[in-house]
Amino acid sequence: MNTGTVPGRGAAFGALLTDFYQLTMLEAYLAQGMHEPAVFELFVRRLPPGRNFLLAAGLEQALDYLEALSFSQAEIDWLDRQGCFSKQLLDHLQTLRFSGDVHALEEGTPFFASEPLLRLTAPLPQAQLVESRLLNILHYQTLVASKAARVVLAAPHSTLVDFGMRRAHGEQAALFAARASFLAGFSGTATVEAGRRFGIPLFGTMAHSFIQAHDSEAAAFESFLRVRGQERERRQGATTLLLDTYDSEAAAAKAIELARRLAPQGLQLTGVRLDSGDLAAQARLIRRMFDQAGLPQLTIFASGDLDEQRIADLLAAGAPIDGFGIGTALSTSSDVPSLDAVYKLQSYAGQPRRKRSQGKATWPGIKQLYRRSSEQGMMSGDLVALESEGAGEINGGRALLQAVMQGGRRLAPAPSLADLRSRQAAARQSLPPELCSLQAAATPYPVVISAGLRSLAEALDRAKV
Amino acid sequence: MNTGTVPGRGAAFGALLTDFYQLTMLEAYLAQGMHEPAVFELFVRRLPPGRNFLLAAGLEQALDYLEALSFSQAEIDWLDRQGCFSKQLLDHLQTLRFSGDVHALEEGTPFFASEPLLRLTAPLPQAQLVESRLLNILHYQTLVASKAARVVLAAPHSTLVDFGMRRAHGEQAALFAARASFLAGFSGTATVEAGRRFGIPLFGTMAHSFIQAHDSEAAAFESFLRVRGQERERRQGATTLLLDTYDSEAAAAKAIELARRLAPQGLQLTGVRLDSGDLAAQARLIRRMFDQAGLPQLTIFASGDLDEQRIADLLAAGAPIDGFGIGTALSTSSDVPSLDAVYKLQSYAGQPRRKRSQGKATWPGIKQLYRRSSEQGMMSGDLVALESEGAGEINGGRALLQAVMQGGRRLAPAPSLADLRSRQAAARQSLPPELCSLQAAATPYPVVISAGLRSLAEALDRAKV
Repeated sequence: MNTGTVPGRGAAFGALLTDFYQLTMLEAYLAQGMHEPAVFELFVRRLPPGRNFLLAAGLEQALDYLEALSFSQAEIDWLDRQGCFSKQLLDHLQTLRFSGDVHALEEGTPFFASEPLLRLTAPLPQAQLVESRLLNILHYQTLVASKAARVVLAAPHSTLVDFGMRRAHGEQAALFAARASFLAGFSGTATVEAGRRFGIPLFGTMAHSFIQAHDSEAAAFESFLRVRGQERERRQGATTLLLDTYDSEAAAAKAIELARRLAPQGLQLTGVRLDSGDLAAQARLIRRMFDQAGLPQLTIFASGDLDEQRIADLLAAGAPIDGFGIGTALSTSSDVPSLDAVYKLQSYAGQPRRKRSQGKATWPGIKQLYRRSSEQGMMSGDLVALESEGAGEINGGRALLQAVMQGGRRLAPAPSLADLRSRQAAARQSLPPELCSLQAAATPYPVVISAGLRSLAEALDRAKV
Repeated sequence: MNTGTVPGRGAAFGALLTDFYQLTMLEAYLAQGMHEPAVFELFVRRLPPGRNFLLAAGLEQALDYLEALSFSQAEIDWLDRQGCFSKQLLDHLQTLRFSGDVHALEEGTPFFASEPLLRLTAPLPQAQLVESRLLNILHYQTLVASKAARVVLAAPHSTLVDFGMRRAHGEQAALFAARASFLAGFSGTATVEAGRRFGIPLFGTMAHSFIQAHDSEAAAFESFLRVRGQERERRQGATTLLLDTYDSEAAAAKAIELARRLAPQGLQLTGVRLDSGDLAAQARLIRRMFDQAGLPQLTIFASGDLDEQRIADLLAAGAPIDGFGIGTALSTSSDVPSLDAVYKLQSYAGQPRRKRSQGKATWPGIKQLYRRSSEQGMMSGDLVALESEGAGEINGGRALLQAVMQGGRRLAPAPSLADLRSRQAAARQSLPPELCSLQAAATPYPVVISAGLRSLAEALDRAKV
């Protein structure tokens, strides 16, 4: 399975990527013999302003992490040298592996506040230890998939490419952003390693520096087309010329001259890219120039600080743009760079648990998420219920949390990213139209907390702690 | 040198972490024999709203990347299988190494818009290829260091801890955030791997789940103190009890009872943590309870969606809080999740180059940054000039871009992070007071573009392209 872990890396690297308190708590659990099963759920407390839904993403990397979890001798020796951990803890880490069960939403599933996207059942020390990294993986991919879904809603018929590597927050963010946006319906990415790792189609044009390095823009265009315009190289938009280094209109005229002159030699120009200025006005002008020159096949691609709202505005203004490169806004989820995602203990040793902190109280117990659909297949309402509640309560909904790992092993091979993407595209069709706006829906999607869950929470609040 | 590269990883992993267009441009450069020296500069086009300065960070990881850069056979084979690259390119990648020179600001140096923080000189194909990853490394660490610097300004006498791993954008963001915030003056991090990798002090308390897993809060507190309160374990705030799982005031009373009862057994409580609700009111109440109980040594630590402004407000309100855990706001730089950082060709084959795109024009040529100081040692004004300009122009400023790499090799071993942090603390003292506010300074710090640079830009604008 090639789902994003560099070979041999999980074990050597992942285990200490956790918060310090996970280790001190682990030490205390061991000292007290607290090994009973714990159930943690990972969910988002509230939707960010303006977001009508989120898309679950990152499960495959989370499962990779759990399957590979182990401490290397070097890591244990380093912990020992810190002089603040017991021999009992260090010995325990020698053989620690994840042996628990995981239930989760399929990647690409839309979900809402208070709905678990992952439920983990394992002996308490293990279940606790993995909190930090599970959140780190699932939070970010979910964040980007949810942002990308909005871009796809804004431009469902356009070529959409992740250009976000350079300002993504480090290497893994770049790779995960490519994966999560492709899952959510993007056409591909510019990040080569993401193509290799996840099989995502690669796209690219040329940089301003390429133009600048040549003595003239015309020379730069011609060189590029001569080298990359052959049949063999002509893929992935690779003969898209960047127009705005000096003057876009003059550059478009050069592109036309070149396309005409080199076509007889079998050298094909794909199109052009605009990266600054008034993109709509330039696109209209250049589209007209291309069409008048008898080159209707040339495409216009736009980039430059784009996000879903700017793209929607461009398309609403009728800008004849065929594709968009979305960079920083995508890979940092710029308007909402984090979600209120948490991983909370809901049950220990068979007893439901509840956190009551002001503004941060949780729904206790082991839960399942049920989704009803209309006859037309549209999502019509969710129910968050205790798994132990009866079928009557569930009211015909489909259970969305599915078993994906048992005893620390995946129950099935990882689905391919392409399959997940197709299923996501189908799920997108089932989103109620009011959720598909970039603005907040007048009526939020109905998520009901079951009667059983409410009474359990009340009962726990009456208990002495 | 242990500056953040997992052993053996640079070569196996880094080279394809680049944008697709870097490879297609590289192919075109090779086909045309364009191997002359190129000079690229990395800078931020404009400061984000409300930010008075930025702190340079990430240089050591950037140099690690350049030193280790090479393509593995597996990477080249994969590229070959894509069927869209020439044999000339694939052959070239077999032996490609970075052989260029780098000048850079020392990490922790304050800088401003249009000031290069890194200048790279290398044969064009190499200099182009490294753009994406250099930006990815330097942009994010600079972003976080700049955010962290504001937190330090808000609370210069408090213990400040990075709690940001779980919502950082992937694994590397978590590690880089710990490093960049420590460089900028934080006390430490909760991320264990960052402690191991960079020698950063580790801090941690306990999670709500720890309390919840026990049958009572009092039992949880007592277990933790019995296990972690021994002399040997008593480090890094590890006996800090979390108070807000159910009711903070009641929890504080339990902490007092416990501290008194177990102190005679040599078990020492460090303090408590508050994570929700009205932190100032709770801190005042609990401080009073501790002091009246004769336990003035107990510290109060606060966390929960904190950023520099909330911390400043808490301290301005006189909240008796000794330390702060800053999470998501730090690791995502939540108010400003990206900088307008770019890497631009300024000279090729000895000829200065200028990008003229609307709103994105660059200052051409090979530059140096000079900084003047007052007699009291305060920064008093910067000059961005051509390196070739005479000393008269420079007007007594100190050149800040220093040679750090020559012919692809570091000129000196990497400085220790602790040394960089000390020098950064000294540099912080030289920031003019008006820049030290969390609000935008009435008068921005003076950055002058030299006359030579301005005339060069004008001359290039007149040239035909």
